[in-house]
Amino acid sequence: MKSQKSIVFLSLVLLSANFHAQKFEKLIQYVNPLIGTEKMGHTYPGATVPFGAVQLSPETDTISYELNGKYNGEVYKYCAGYRYEDKTIVGFSSTHFSGTGHSDLGDFLVIPTVGKLQLNPGTASNPENGYRSRFSHQNETAEAGYYKVKLDDHNILAELTATPRVGIHRYTFPKSDQAHIILDLMAGIYNYDGKNVWTYVRVENGNTITGYRQTNGWARTRTVYFAMKFSKPFKSYGQKNYDEKQVYKGFWRKFDQNKNFPEIAGKNLKMYFDFDTNENEAIEVKLAISPVSQTNALENLEKEAGNLSFDQAKTQAQNNWNKELNKIVIKGSDTEKTNFYTAMYHTFINPTTYMDVNGEYKGLDQNVHKADGFTNYTTFSLWDTYRTLHPFFNIIQPKRNSDMVKSMMAHYNQFSMKMLPIWSHYANDNWCMSGYHSVSVVADAIIKGNYDGNPEEALKACIETANKRNYEGIGQYIDLGYIPAEKNGTSVSNTLEYAYDDWAIAQLAKHLNKTEIYNQFIKRSENWKNNFDKTIGFMRPRLADGSFKKDFDVLSTHGQGFIEGNSWNYSFFVPQNPDELITMMGGKKKFASKLDELFTMHLPDEFFADTEDITREGIIGGYVHGNEPAHHVAYFYNWAGQPWKAQAQIRRILEMQYKATPDGLGGNDDAGQMSAWYILSSLGFYPVAPGSEDYSIGSPAIDNAVLNLENGKTFEIESINQSPKNVYVQKVLLNGKEIRNFTLKHSEIMNGGKLTFYMGNKAKR
Amino acid sequence: MKSQKSIVFLSLVLLSANFHAQKFEKLIQYVNPLIGTEKMGHTYPGATVPFGAVQLSPETDTISYELNGKYNGEVYKYCAGYRYEDKTIVGFSSTHFSGTGHSDLGDFLVIPTVGKLQLNPGTASNPENGYRSRFSHQNETAEAGYYKVKLDDHNILAELTATPRVGIHRYTFPKSDQAHIILDLMAGIYNYDGKNVWTYVRVENGNTITGYRQTNGWARTRTVYFAMKFSKPFKSYGQKNYDEKQVYKGFWRKFDQNKNFPEIAGKNLKMYFDFDTNENEAIEVKLAISPVSQTNALENLEKEAGNLSFDQAKTQAQNNWNKELNKIVIKGSDTEKTNFYTAMYHTFINPTTYMDVNGEYKGLDQNVHKADGFTNYTTFSLWDTYRTLHPFFNIIQPKRNSDMVKSMMAHYNQFSMKMLPIWSHYANDNWCMSGYHSVSVVADAIIKGNYDGNPEEALKACIETANKRNYEGIGQYIDLGYIPAEKNGTSVSNTLEYAYDDWAIAQLAKHLNKTEIYNQFIKRSENWKNNFDKTIGFMRPRLADGSFKKDFDVLSTHGQGFIEGNSWNYSFFVPQNPDELITMMGGKKKFASKLDELFTMHLPDEFFADTEDITREGIIGGYVHGNEPAHHVAYFYNWAGQPWKAQAQIRRILEMQYKATPDGLGGNDDAGQMSAWYILSSLGFYPVAPGSEDYSIGSPAIDNAVLNLENGKTFEIESINQSPKNVYVQKVLLNGKEIRNFTLKHSEIMNGGKLTFYMGNKAKR
Repeated sequence: MKSQKSIVFLSLVLLSANFHAQKFEKLIQYVNPLIGTEKMGHTYPGATVPFGAVQLSPETDTISYELNGKYNGEVYKYCAGYRYEDKTIVGFSSTHFSGTGHSDLGDFLVIPTVGKLQLNPGTASNPENGYRSRFSHQNETAEAGYYKVKLDDHNILAELTATPRVGIHRYTFPKSDQAHIILDLMAGIYNYDGKNVWTYVRVENGNTITGYRQTNGWARTRTVYFAMKFSKPFKSYGQKNYDEKQVYKGFWRKFDQNKNFPEIAGKNLKMYFDFDTNENEAIEVKLAISPVSQTNALENLEKEAGNLSFDQAKTQAQNNWNKELNKIVIKGSDTEKTNFYTAMYHTFINPTTYMDVNGEYKGLDQNVHKADGFTNYTTFSLWDTYRTLHPFFNIIQPKRNSDMVKSMMAHYNQFSMKMLPIWSHYANDNWCMSGYHSVSVVADAIIKGNYDGNPEEALKACIETANKRNYEGIGQYIDLGYIPAEKNGTSVSNTLEYAYDDWAIAQLAKHLNKTEIYNQFIKRSENWKNNFDKTIGFMRPRLADGSFKKDFDVLSTHGQGFIEGNSWNYSFFVPQNPDELITMMGGKKKFASKLDELFTMHLPDEFFADTEDITREGIIGGYVHGNEPAHHVAYFYNWAGQPWKAQAQIRRILEMQYKATPDGLGGNDDAGQMSAWYILSSLGFYPVAPGSEDYSIGSPAIDNAVLNLENGKTFEIESINQSPKNVYVQKVLLNGKEIRNFTLKHSEIMNGGKLTFYMGNKAKR
Repeated sequence: MKSQKSIVFLSLVLLSANFHAQKFEKLIQYVNPLIGTEKMGHTYPGATVPFGAVQLSPETDTISYELNGKYNGEVYKYCAGYRYEDKTIVGFSSTHFSGTGHSDLGDFLVIPTVGKLQLNPGTASNPENGYRSRFSHQNETAEAGYYKVKLDDHNILAELTATPRVGIHRYTFPKSDQAHIILDLMAGIYNYDGKNVWTYVRVENGNTITGYRQTNGWARTRTVYFAMKFSKPFKSYGQKNYDEKQVYKGFWRKFDQNKNFPEIAGKNLKMYFDFDTNENEAIEVKLAISPVSQTNALENLEKEAGNLSFDQAKTQAQNNWNKELNKIVIKGSDTEKTNFYTAMYHTFINPTTYMDVNGEYKGLDQNVHKADGFTNYTTFSLWDTYRTLHPFFNIIQPKRNSDMVKSMMAHYNQFSMKMLPIWSHYANDNWCMSGYHSVSVVADAIIKGNYDGNPEEALKACIETANKRNYEGIGQYIDLGYIPAEKNGTSVSNTLEYAYDDWAIAQLAKHLNKTEIYNQFIKRSENWKNNFDKTIGFMRPRLADGSFKKDFDVLSTHGQGFIEGNSWNYSFFVPQNPDELITMMGGKKKFASKLDELFTMHLPDEFFADTEDITREGIIGGYVHGNEPAHHVAYFYNWAGQPWKAQAQIRRILEMQYKATPDGLGGNDDAGQMSAWYILSSLGFYPVAPGSEDYSIGSPAIDNAVLNLENGKTFEIESINQSPKNVYVQKVLLNGKEIRNFTLKHSEIMNGGKLTFYMGNKAKR
C-alpha cells in the first residue's frame, strides 16, 4: 500500500508540476523533430524526453550491414532508423541515436497489424508481403515528446510518447478479430547476421512480458532488458524462432513452444500478440527498458508510467520539454524560432540517461553499480560534443554537465584500462574517432565551476588517460612529439587533437595549482608544431625518421593522416593557441588570406566524394561545416584582426547549414554538436577553446534572447538592428560597458546581465 | 578490516572443525572416484566437496556434438569429460555432471604447458600438436576432494582440490622461461558450433581475472561468471578470438587487443598467461564460479578460499567428505567398503549448491534472487533420483533434502509456467524424461516430516504441476485416463509415471487432511490400468480410439511408447499398488513366474542395442538395472509371496552391477540414483514407493552398519552370518522384535534402534 500511495503522491506532484509549467511560454510549438531526418542529418522524428533513456521512433526500413556477405552501404543511411524520403514504416523501436555517423540500437521493434499474420517486414516496393505499412507525411505529426502517423495499409493510427525510461505506444485499430501487435526481436539498426547474441522473453501474465536483448554491435557487449505491458490482455500469443540451429530442441518439445508458451529464448526471435478490436479501439503499450534486469525494467515501468494514461504521459513529456526550452527565450520570426528551438531540442537529447529509477546501471566491468547522488549518463560522442555541446551545457545545463563528468569518472573507474571515455555507449567504449576529448569536457566543467565531484581525482583521470601509451599512438606521441604516419592512419589529427587536449589538462592543472603538471602538459600542447610543414604552410604527416610524407595532398581526406577532414581544414586545428599558429603561418594578413581561401576555394568533386557524413551543401568553399574539425575556424578571423569576416562567415554558415526543413541539416547533427554550434553562434559568441573561460564574439542572428540560468539569474542578449543584411557588429556592450577585444567571459554570463549588440550592414574595420 | 577479521575468524573455525573431524573414522580412504569413469558410468574422477557447486576434473577429450554438420555419437561418451580408456588429458574444467546420460558444462578449461605456446588441443593420436598431454594411470591419484596427475608431455604435476564454489589447481612446473597456463573458453562438454553465446573476460590486475561464459546448451540460457586468481603474477598474457565475424573491429584496433589487453569479449575465445618458472615451482590457480556476477565470484573466491593454501583446502575438503561419510559406518572387507563409500560419495555430489556465499542466485525468471534461510540447489535429475536418492536423503541428509524441496519450490515460483522442476539445471528446466517426479520428492519429504517450509503451498505446487494440460500429454491423460500413442512418443511411460506421481500427491493430500484432493488423485493414480492389455498381460500403447496399438513388441525400447525401457520392464511400473498389479497379472504365482522370466530371459542383441545408457553387463536377463524403471522390481517378490527370490536377485544385482573398478558400474550412475540403490539395498531395505513411509526388506550385504542420524540418534543394522552365499533372510528383528511383513517404517529408523538380520544359505519359504 505504501508504494501505491507514493505513486499517487508522485502523480499529484507531477500534476502540480504541470500547472506550474503553464507559466512557461509554449515553446514546443517551434520544435520540428522532422528537421534533419532527410539526407544526412541522421536525426529521428519520434518521441523522447530531455536526455531520456528511451527514444521511441519509427523505422522506415530494416537494412542489414551485410548484403550477400558484402558490406551494404545503404545501412549508413539508416543510422537513426527513419528516412524522410521513404514511403513505408516497418515499426516503432525504443532506442535511437540522434545525428550520429555510425550506429546501433533499434531495440524492440513493435508494429500493429490487422488481417493475416505476417512476421516478415516485407519490402518497400511490396509492403503487402510483410508487416510494414505505407504512410504519408500528410498523416504524420512530429512534436517534442509526441509522434503520430497513420499506417495506411493497416488502417491503424499509431501514436508515440515517452517518459525517461518508458516508451508508450497507442494504436487505434479498426474493428477486427485479427488484430496483432508484433514484437520483432530480430530487427535492429546497423544489423548484421550474428549481431543478436541472445534474446529472452517471459510472459508474466495476460498483458505483461519481460525479457532482454543482447547484441554484439557497435557496442561490443550490450544487453537491454525490457518490460512491456498492454492495456488490454492479449487473446493469444506466439513466437517464431529463426535460429538455424536449435540443438536439444527435442527436450523442449515437451511443450508446444510456438503458441501461448511463456518462456522463450533464442538468437533470432519474433513474437506476436493477438486481439479482437472494436472500431477505433485504442490499445496502449508501455515498454520500459533497463540496463540491469527485468525486475528493474518492471520497476521503471510502474514507477514512471504505471498510472499514466497515454494523454497524461504526452502532457508530462511536453511540459518537460517546454520547461527545458524556456531556459532560453528568444524573439524572432517563426522560422528563426523553429530553427532555434529545434536545435535546442536536439542538444537536449544526448547524452542519454543510463540508470534505472533505483539508480542502478551496468558498468564497463559488467557489474551492477548504483549512481550515488547523480544521474548516470551514456551516449558520449565526445569527438563531436566536447567542442560546443558540453560548453553550452556549462551555461544552460550546469547541473547535468556536472553529472556527465561524474558519469565519465564512473566510466574511468570501472574500465579495466583506467581511461576516460572516448565514445561511451551502455557498458562499452566504442573507441570511435581521434583524441581523448573527455579531458576537455572535464577541464572545462571544473574551470567553469561546474563540477561538484573531486577535481583532483578528475585531473588524475585526465593524466592517466593522456598517458595511455598503448592507445592510438600515444606512446610515440609522448616520445617523439608526433605520431609517425607509418604507425597510424590518422596520425596528424591525433597529434593535433592530443595537443589541444593536453592544453586543456594544463589549464585544469593550473586551476588546481599543480605547476609541475601544468608545465608538463603545456609543453605537450605545443606538439602540433611537429606536424606543421613550414615549407608549404600546412599540417602534414611525418614519418618515423622525421621527414614529412612525400606523397601528400592537402585536399584529400583519406590516407593523409586525418579523419573526417583534409589538411586544409585540420591545418587550423590549434584552438589553444591561434596567435602562435598565425605566426607560423606568416602573420595575421597571410593568415586571414588563407582563411579567405578556405571559405572561397572550390573543392573538386573527387575530394568531396571522400568527405564523409555531409551533403554537398555541407561545405562552403573548402570549409566543411558538416564535419567538426573546423567548427571554430570562422572565429579565427577575430585573432587575424578581421573580426568582420568572422561575422559574415558565421551568418553565412548559420543560414546555409541550418534550415527549418527535413533536409535542413548539412551533415549529421552529431549527437547535438551541430545544433549547439547553431545556438551559441546565433546568440553571438562561441567557445573556441573549451578549457578557457573565454568566448569569442561573432554575430548574433536573433533580436533578443533571455537565458534563464540555473542559478536564478538571467542573461539577456539584445541585438539592435540585426537582420540578414545587418550582420556586422558595430559595437557590443556588456552591462553598458563596451567590449573591445571580442571576448566574453563565462563568469560574465553566469553573473547575469545584458549583452547589447549594435548591428549594421557595413563591416566595422 | 572487519571482513579481514571475519575471514581470520572463519579460518579458526575451520581449523577447529578440522580438529573436531579427527574423531571421525578415516573413511575417505575407501572412496575411489575412478569407479564409473570407464565405459558407461559417466562419473568423473576430479575434486569436489559434498554437494559443491564446483566439480574440478580432468577432460580427456574435447568432442563436438557435430562432426562435419552431423551428429557425432562419440560426444555421448564424454558426458563427464573424462574416460578412463583415454591416454591424454586436454585440461581441467570447473563443472561436471556426475553420471548423467546427457550433458553440458565443462566450463573454464585450464591447462598448464611449457615451451611453444599452442592454443589448440591437438589430437589423442598426436598430442604434440596441441596443448594436451599424455598421462598414465600409474601417475594418477583420485581421492574424495583431491586429484593428482602427471602431465607427461609437459613434465608438469597437476593437482586439484576444491571448496564449495572454488576450484583450486596446483601446477608444479619444471624450470622454464616459457611456462603457460591456458584458459580455453571455447572448450566445453557436449559442445557444438554455436553453443558459446558470449564470453567476457576482464583482467583485474596482474594476477586476477574475472568474466563470464554464456552458453546455449542443454541448459538453453545459462551464464556462469568466474573469478580466477593466480598465486604468482603472470609476466604477460594474451588472447585469440576465433570468431568468424568480428564486425566493427576497426574501432577496436585503437589498441592491440591480442596482447596484454585487459578487456576481452567474443563468442570463441582462448586466453593464455605466461610465466617464468624455477625447477619444481608450484603455481596455484583459484577459480571461483557464480551464477550471478563477477563481483559475487570474487566474493566467493575471497570468502571461501582467499587465505587457504592448496594443502589447507585439500585437508578441509577431505575432512568435509569424511564427516559426511561417517554418517554411515560399516564393517566389511576393503572391497565392500570401497563399493559402499564410493557409492556414498557419488550420492553426495548431486544436487549441487546453486547460490553464492551471499545467498544470491539467478532464478528461472532470469532475475537475481536471494535464498532466504536455505541452501538453494540445482542439478535435479528427478526421473532418476526420486526413486532412491531423495528417499535416502530423507534418512541421512534430511536438512539438505528439506532445502532441496525449498529449491524446487523456488523453481516453481520463478518459472513462468508455474511447474515444479523436471530437470533443473542452473536457471533452466531441461525438461528431460517422463513424469513429474518432483511431486514424489515433495510428498515423500513432507510425509516423512522433513520439510520445514509451508506444506500447503507445496501441495498446491504439486497439483498445479500435475494439471499442466499442455505439458507432455497431461491434458489427454486427465481427459482419457491415458495418453493416445499417436500424440506422444512416450505415451505409456508417461501415463504410468503420472499415475504413480498422482498417488504420491494423494498421499500428501491425505497427510494434510485434504480428502477431496486425495480422492481426486487416488483416482488418477489408477490410470495405469488403462495401458494394461489383459489379453497379453503387458502394458501397451493405446490409440485415441481406445484400441491398443497393433504393431507392438514387448522387447523393443523404441517407438513403443516407453523411454529407456521396454514393455517388459515398464509393465511392472506400478510401485504404488503392487497388489492390484498382481491381481491384474493373474495372481501371485503367475506374477512371480513373470518376474522369474524377466530375470532369466535372454534379451536378443537387437533389443539390447537400442537400450540406452548401459553396457551388456547392465542387464540381468531382461531386467535392465542400468536404467531406472525397474529399480523396484526385485522387491516385488515380497508382494508375490516369494521374498527369498527378492533376496537372491538383490544380491545378484549388487554383485553384478557394482564393482570396485573403473568399469564397475553397469550404466550411468544417474546423478547418484544407482549409488543410492546400492546403499539402501546393501543395508537391507528399499523405498519401493516414495511417498509411503514403508521400506521393503531385501537382503543386507554388509555385516554391520551404524547410521548416525542428524537427530542425534543412531540406527544400527546387524547382519548375522551374511556372506555371498548366505543371502537369505532367516529372521529379521527390530529392537529384538521380529518383523514378519518384510516392511520397515521410516519412523522406526529415525527413532533409532537396531535392525538384526539372521542370514542363511537356504531360502526361508
